[in-house]
Amino acid sequence: MNATAMKTPAMPATIVNGIDVDALKGVVDEISKDPAKGMVEFRVTSAWKGKTRSGAVVESYSLAGQRIDRRFSMMVDEPLELLGENTAPNPQEYLMTALNACVTVGYVAGAAIRGIRLDSVQVTTEGALDLRGFLGIDPAVKPGYDRIRYTVRIKGDGTPEQFREIHETVLKTSPNYFNVSQPIAIDADLIVER
Amino acid sequence: MNATAMKTPAMPATIVNGIDVDALKGVVDEISKDPAKGMVEFRVTSAWKGKTRSGAVVESYSLAGQRIDRRFSMMVDEPLELLGENTAPNPQEYLMTALNACVTVGYVAGAAIRGIRLDSVQVTTEGALDLRGFLGIDPAVKPGYDRIRYTVRIKGDGTPEQFREIHETVLKTSPNYFNVSQPIAIDADLIVER
Repeated sequence: MNATAMKTPAMPATIVNGIDVDALKGVVDEISKDPAKGMVEFRVTSAWKGKTRSGAVVESYSLAGQRIDRRFSMMVDEPLELLGENTAPNPQEYLMTALNACVTVGYVAGAAIRGIRLDSVQVTTEGALDLRGFLGIDPAVKPGYDRIRYTVRIKGDGTPEQFREIHETVLKTSPNYFNVSQPIAIDADLIVER
Repeated sequence: MNATAMKTPAMPATIVNGIDVDALKGVVDEISKDPAKGMVEFRVTSAWKGKTRSGAVVESYSLAGQRIDRRFSMMVDEPLELLGENTAPNPQEYLMTALNACVTVGYVAGAAIRGIRLDSVQVTTEGALDLRGFLGIDPAVKPGYDRIRYTVRIKGDGTPEQFREIHETVLKTSPNYFNVSQPIAIDADLIVER
């Protein structure tokens, strides 16, 4: 302990599950007062890389109208049996990863704000598709899922009732749970280049 | 040219856009005759990695009831401003990548089966979320997208009419276009571990 440490310390941050709970509460307060601060926009550009491969690039997102640069890339392919080269996860696996990751943040933040310390969260999603839809063999067959199943295994110092409450909240507030389970309007533009 | 090449050659495969069109037509025929051959199941398991990070693992998928092992992993995080560490794309960016990659395969296969050679396919998706939904500030605010916009830029030796036809087919047959634009039932199980 040195002299500096003897001075009046700043209030320590309350960190639960790695989440700065005071910062989270601050964000909630700020957005409650000014909803424009909670408007967020995402964008991804993907380019065909031959056969069934594509590469996606993230260059920025926007928060409260302000563009924030960050750069990531993701590769997607199909398995050998689906005419791909099996060099990367496929679009269905990206969709499930998107769902799993989104609900995971929901469980972690939901526990943090209640002061519940988590040991682990594991989410498994699975679903079956009938390829007659994608291949246009039968227009009566859906190209996507009829239903998908996700199972979350959670461990921590909360009560079963608290975990049930967090779970129910996640089902109501997770963006990707909503995006998959509810219909989203998609405006699709085609530009034919010369 | 050597002696071997002078022998009666096997019929060369018809490759368009890297897609073996004969193999694709063979798959369509086979699944038309026996729809069980076109049943495919995907599964992804994700584990919380601290803060807003999660790691997704693909270990297998199933085609026609047969499990096929393959291994991929994906990391997901949130940007700094959303209480993450910005080490990886976020769940929204994974969702858009899933959509973009799925429609890209649709354009490429749709062009290949019509004998249209493509130079490029680029898909951009963007959408805005109101964080009051995720944060539970206002139950009347959707946690997910109100609408998203995707723009495809395509270049190749097809006519504008052919590209329009392929585009309309993709909107009807893309699994992830369906999964995002149409409601999908999700069976969500919670297991509280001790």
